Amino acid sequence: MVEAAGVHASTDMPIPDTMKAWVLGDPGQLRLTEKPVPMPKRAEVLVRIDAVAICATDLEIIEHGTPALIQGGPPFNKNFTPGHEYMGTVAALGPGVDEYKIGERVTVEIHAGCGQCKRCRQGMYTSCHNYGLNYGSVDKGHRANGFTTDGGFAEYAVNHINTLSRVPDDMSDEEATLVVTAGTSMYGLTELGGLVAGESVVVTGPGPIGLLAVAVAKALGADPVILSGTRDARLAIGTKLGADRVVNVRNEDIVAVVKEMTGRGADYVVECAGTDTAINEAAKMVNRGGRICLAAFPHEPVLADIGALVKNNIYVYGIRGEGKSATHRAMALMAEKRFDATLIHTHTFPLTDLPMALHYARNRVDDAIKVVVKTRGVVTQTRKEVA
Amino acid sequence: MVEAAGVHASTDMPIPDTMKAWVLGDPGQLRLTEKPVPMPKRAEVLVRIDAVAICATDLEIIEHGTPALIQGGPPFNKNFTPGHEYMGTVAALGPGVDEYKIGERVTVEIHAGCGQCKRCRQGMYTSCHNYGLNYGSVDKGHRANGFTTDGGFAEYAVNHINTLSRVPDDMSDEEATLVVTAGTSMYGLTELGGLVAGESVVVTGPGPIGLLAVAVAKALGADPVILSGTRDARLAIGTKLGADRVVNVRNEDIVAVVKEMTGRGADYVVECAGTDTAINEAAKMVNRGGRICLAAFPHEPVLADIGALVKNNIYVYGIRGEGKSATHRAMALMAEKRFDATLIHTHTFPLTDLPMALHYARNRVDDAIKVVVKTRGVVTQTRKEVA
Amino acid sequence: MVEAAGVHASTDMPIPDTMKAWVLGDPGQLRLTEKPVPMPKRAEVLVRIDAVAICATDLEIIEHGTPALIQGGPPFNKNFTPGHEYMGTVAALGPGVDEYKIGERVTVEIHAGCGQCKRCRQGMYTSCHNYGLNYGSVDKGHRANGFTTDGGFAEYAVNHINTLSRVPDDMSDEEATLVVTAGTSMYGLTELGGLVAGESVVVTGPGPIGLLAVAVAKALGADPVILSGTRDARLAIGTKLGADRVVNVRNEDIVAVVKEMTGRGADYVVECAGTDTAINEAAKMVNRGGRICLAAFPHEPVLADIGALVKNNIYVYGIRGEGKSATHRAMALMAEKRFDATLIHTHTFPLTDLPMALHYARNRVDDAIKVVVKTRGVVTQTRKEVA
Amino acid sequence: MVEAAGVHASTDMPIPDTMKAWVLGDPGQLRLTEKPVPMPKRAEVLVRIDAVAICATDLEIIEHGTPALIQGGPPFNKNFTPGHEYMGTVAALGPGVDEYKIGERVTVEIHAGCGQCKRCRQGMYTSCHNYGLNYGSVDKGHRANGFTTDGGFAEYAVNHINTLSRVPDDMSDEEATLVVTAGTSMYGLTELGGLVAGESVVVTGPGPIGLLAVAVAKALGADPVILSGTRDARLAIGTKLGADRVVNVRNEDIVAVVKEMTGRGADYVVECAGTDTAINEAAKMVNRGGRICLAAFPHEPVLADIGALVKNNIYVYGIRGEGKSATHRAMALMAEKRFDATLIHTHTFPLTDLPMALHYARNRVDDAIKVVVKTRGVVTQTRKEVA
Repeated sequence: MVEAAGVHASTDMPIPDTMKAWVLGDPGQLRLTEKPVPMPKRAEVLVRIDAVAICATDLEIIEHGTPALIQGGPPFNKNFTPGHEYMGTVAALGPGVDEYKIGERVTVEIHAGCGQCKRCRQGMYTSCHNYGLNYGSVDKGHRANGFTTDGGFAEYAVNHINTLSRVPDDMSDEEATLVVTAGTSMYGLTELGGLVAGESVVVTGPGPIGLLAVAVAKALGADPVILSGTRDARLAIGTKLGADRVVNVRNEDIVAVVKEMTGRGADYVVECAGTDTAINEAAKMVNRGGRICLAAFPHEPVLADIGALVKNNIYVYGIRGEGKSATHRAMALMAEKRFDATLIHTHTFPLTDLPMALHYARNRVDDAIKVVVKTRGVVTQTRKEVA
Repeated sequence: MVEAAGVHASTDMPIPDTMKAWVLGDPGQLRLTEKPVPMPKRAEVLVRIDAVAICATDLEIIEHGTPALIQGGPPFNKNFTPGHEYMGTVAALGPGVDEYKIGERVTVEIHAGCGQCKRCRQGMYTSCHNYGLNYGSVDKGHRANGFTTDGGFAEYAVNHINTLSRVPDDMSDEEATLVVTAGTSMYGLTELGGLVAGESVVVTGPGPIGLLAVAVAKALGADPVILSGTRDARLAIGTKLGADRVVNVRNEDIVAVVKEMTGRGADYVVECAGTDTAINEAAKMVNRGGRICLAAFPHEPVLADIGALVKNNIYVYGIRGEGKSATHRAMALMAEKRFDATLIHTHTFPLTDLPMALHYARNRVDDAIKVVVKTRGVVTQTRKEVA
Repeated sequence: MVEAAGVHASTDMPIPDTMKAWVLGDPGQLRLTEKPVPMPKRAEVLVRIDAVAICATDLEIIEHGTPALIQGGPPFNKNFTPGHEYMGTVAALGPGVDEYKIGERVTVEIHAGCGQCKRCRQGMYTSCHNYGLNYGSVDKGHRANGFTTDGGFAEYAVNHINTLSRVPDDMSDEEATLVVTAGTSMYGLTELGGLVAGESVVVTGPGPIGLLAVAVAKALGADPVILSGTRDARLAIGTKLGADRVVNVRNEDIVAVVKEMTGRGADYVVECAGTDTAINEAAKMVNRGGRICLAAFPHEPVLADIGALVKNNIYVYGIRGEGKSATHRAMALMAEKRFDATLIHTHTFPLTDLPMALHYARNRVDDAIKVVVKTRGVVTQTRKEVA
Repeated sequence: MVEAAGVHASTDMPIPDTMKAWVLGDPGQLRLTEKPVPMPKRAEVLVRIDAVAICATDLEIIEHGTPALIQGGPPFNKNFTPGHEYMGTVAALGPGVDEYKIGERVTVEIHAGCGQCKRCRQGMYTSCHNYGLNYGSVDKGHRANGFTTDGGFAEYAVNHINTLSRVPDDMSDEEATLVVTAGTSMYGLTELGGLVAGESVVVTGPGPIGLLAVAVAKALGADPVILSGTRDARLAIGTKLGADRVVNVRNEDIVAVVKEMTGRGADYVVECAGTDTAINEAAKMVNRGGRICLAAFPHEPVLADIGALVKNNIYVYGIRGEGKSATHRAMALMAEKRFDATLIHTHTFPLTDLPMALHYARNRVDDAIKVVVKTRGVVTQTRKEVA
């Protein structure tokens, strides 16, 4: 197959014609099937997937369909493979690719912009105006693997080279799957201005993005970093990742704590809770002229105090996922062991047990945070021992 | 008086000991009194007020008190003089001031930051963390004339030199009072990035800030500029100020019009309506990666679709008033006659008729938009003839 | 031809198999030949060239070869077609292109970045790290028409859609060829921060980029705009384009004039003279914390006072050509008639007389500034009457 | 004394009327004298100086006079006290100061801007347009202690609160004197954009600023960080501070090394060598679209390849000293022990031995890098043992 069309493969790493892949069925269903191995085109590589982490968005896509469907696009795609937080090994190179070599370990970010629209031309490829347009006569080359193009719950996937980061030899497969999550946290801080050393940062919501936002902010010198949430076990992980103060909002008033610790309020709030309360409290916690990153949201409209934003000259940045090469910056910090992202990795399953892995992730069975699925070497579920 | 403390005055422009000034009484009341003429300190000048425009915020302050009161500060100040959109003539110079000369015509912006806090040190003086702290033992030097320090419904006021812009000889007093409004509009566009030539801008709400946002955006080359509102007379002024398209939201669907004219949605929305509907429509009108400036707000919380901001990577900037020297940029455009701000000026009253002027402004009597009060030369109310 | 490979053409605008094109011969030589009409690929269109302006860089390429050659690349390409300031009519669409229609008039910018390198991902496509890599096994998709890929001294050219701007019906072909020059000037101001209303700008050197820098700066509200040069005729055009003050450096000391007009020095200097003197004077004219855009340069190293840059916290931005979609912003201003770029257009020749046109441009025969070559309708040289 | 004018002192920390201070004599001479202890004004504090480091600029001022003199200002000031890298203890508070308490340990940055000029209003207080204007009728309130206002080679100094950073209890006096140097390095990286995690940075010149630029860049995640210089001992310290590669330019070609390690060249160069060669090599080492910070300069003009800057869209930022609150960011990293700045501190002297301390610093006696002078507790010169 790969001999066609200028694709370069290697005998050291033979590529089968077909592969195992999980695909969407009816809403809420996934089934394991055999699919052709896809072929990389110009500026793309074929990645043999070694590990993939489960994100809350995966659960939504399995239940409700891909964004295209939600936005009134094509009907629910029963052959679509979700999964977007994966890493693996370069297995074949598209025509003309010399940026990567076969055999290199790589981890991915989600979005490859079209390169043609206004936002891509500005470097804002995660805001591509041709989002989802990658098929038939409207192929603008946009890819969001696991969202609009086939993703990582499979043995192979095609990735644009823009979406790759190299994985250092001493980083485990499991840790490498967390780079895109850390990259999302990093993108939030990037959009907030990037200069956080010595500035106060509040992170609301100790989910994976929130916990790694604590870690990234602290690695960049933010001080203090305050984390709020409702589960003490999660907050304890936040402490290990560098939070100077954790606040269980069931017991303490986060706004009061922030005001007490900072005087005028925090310089930055990274809102990862996505609840009505958290969103309104963000505006109360941030100081005049401060900035809020919204990295989560409730599905229903929120009764929001817009006046507080206007009266206090507050800037709000909505982000969904990574952007502006933030995964590269996150990888740089992780490669230098500035924080231990694996503290949020709790469980590992073989790819064939994906439904069980999803069950753990969805229902937080056994206090699951990040559940990772591996294509090889893992034959049964394992609970990671956390120090 | 002015001989004291290094203040420099001129015999050409003798300064009386006392002056006429309107002051707050009980809520909703203003009374004309005689007050000492204030004395400028270091980096300040004394301005003889020649004209002052009425802003909606003035009406709020007269009714509900100053921001200090609203924020739990000192009790309703019965001797406070409101009014912040004024212009006049430099009458005396504080110690060491050589940036201005006695006799120069100047117009003002509101905020003089403390110069000491984090935000002032960043150049964000309208987000001063010492807002309102300008008295007694907590004097941090912040001034917001007409908000926290005495304002312009009087014969004289003290201004920090940072708040002044020179008025060209061929600009009328009335037009000069509109610079701070235009500066607010300009600040909105500044915060949105400033590069609007050829970009699409929607302005919602044809109040004074919205109308001048149309004018400034157009002067900077934005295309198209779309204005929405509910009153045809106001929208017609928007057309004169450069709007490429006006939309009466009683008759047309603004979101549909914007989508039709721009394809993916507008690059920028300047929200000046302050209604629930307008705020939520802003998020629907702006394109992925686009920016919204909130320059108005409802007094009650709004049911807002936060998810739309997050999913579409939208940036929201709350502003209240001018900032980052935007009044200077606005004045530069007005001095070069790039737009005719006087199209929003409708009525003129003598200072002694301030209550009537406020009545016109509050109740939009005779389709009033901007009502200007003059200290001299105007003996009776006049309706400006609009071409 | 165009039926192949998904290219879309129209019977209304039939495309021949071959075309007339000027190509490089030995250094300093050009010859008119017949070449195959090129075929647009994905995200590209075929442009029927209607007019092309001559730039000083064209003269260098004809004399010394393309940048690839100069940078030690492939040997002097005897079949290469230079010319990069052209406009024309969309004649065919590459596969999947629906952003443009056949028959639309368009003008071009030079650079289409690879979309894959660090700079392209940041939106800095004119700093593409794969500059010149567009052939054989190293095809990264970069194009710089007239520099590294065939240009506009021909009947047809292929353009990436990222390089196109639509031309309004009421803009002449000749004026449309000037958009890329205005875009370069606009890019200079963009890199300088973009907020020039009311700020002082000095432009040194009244060549095409300098003259249009005056026009663009003035259109954006800069005040004052000061232009320096050595030829009064050119300076007079600067005055028509909006310069508040022109300085013939043979008669006056530009540094002294700038200091006198601005006090502390200018906020911005756009250096378009490219002489030793001008570069050093730029650092003397700009104020502390000010910014200099270098848009020209001498071929030899310059004895430069680096200490002045360091001691005064001066920022220097080198630019070569347009960038960051500045041509779109320039076109927006030109479409709204904010300045008359055609003041710099002096002569028109038919395409067959290109050598004579180059002679006029090179030697400034008859005070030539911009010389335009047209493919049709012009049978003999014409001198544009300047009002 | 301090009871006057609203100044607040404490009996716990009595303040004498006079103090020991070194003052300028004839060029090249310093003499120890007794001076009145100065009194803090509004927004100022009195600092009891505990330690002060010697900077190369101190040596220049002692030899050639203050910048005011150099720039044609008032004559060589024989009563002026130089020294600007100091730390100490808050001894008295100016009127209204409540941001600091008596007894707090603080370290300083140099510049307190006037707060009135264009640059100060933008937050660029180190580019204050009223630099040096702080006396008599032209008092604009600018202070640059040790440059234009009395500095730190004395027992007490007055500091604007904007110039202070708190010193953690576990940071030594000596280390605290290094914050302004680290802040200068941090400002360089701030001006270069701040987002250096995973980006390549070259630092040329292993002086104090260069060495701490390595440390700060590495702390922020830059990778690789390459340091060049001529002395192996200094380069070895660079390695300890985090340099991934050091290059002795006597033995190796730095440009070749950078190209080999980075491919296209480095993303950022922080030029701290100030030699002709280093400045030109910076332009060769940086990649297309990259950025150079000039933090040093030769006293004579340099033959510089301006064309390289223009052709490669290179940005150059001149900095002199710290800015934009970068000392706060540097202190945040140092407080968290992200790097050991004391690696550059080599010698300590008592204040009375300042001339000998200057001799060590000037002539790099005993491989001196940073020489610190202490007002108390040190009775004889000490060589710091470096691990």
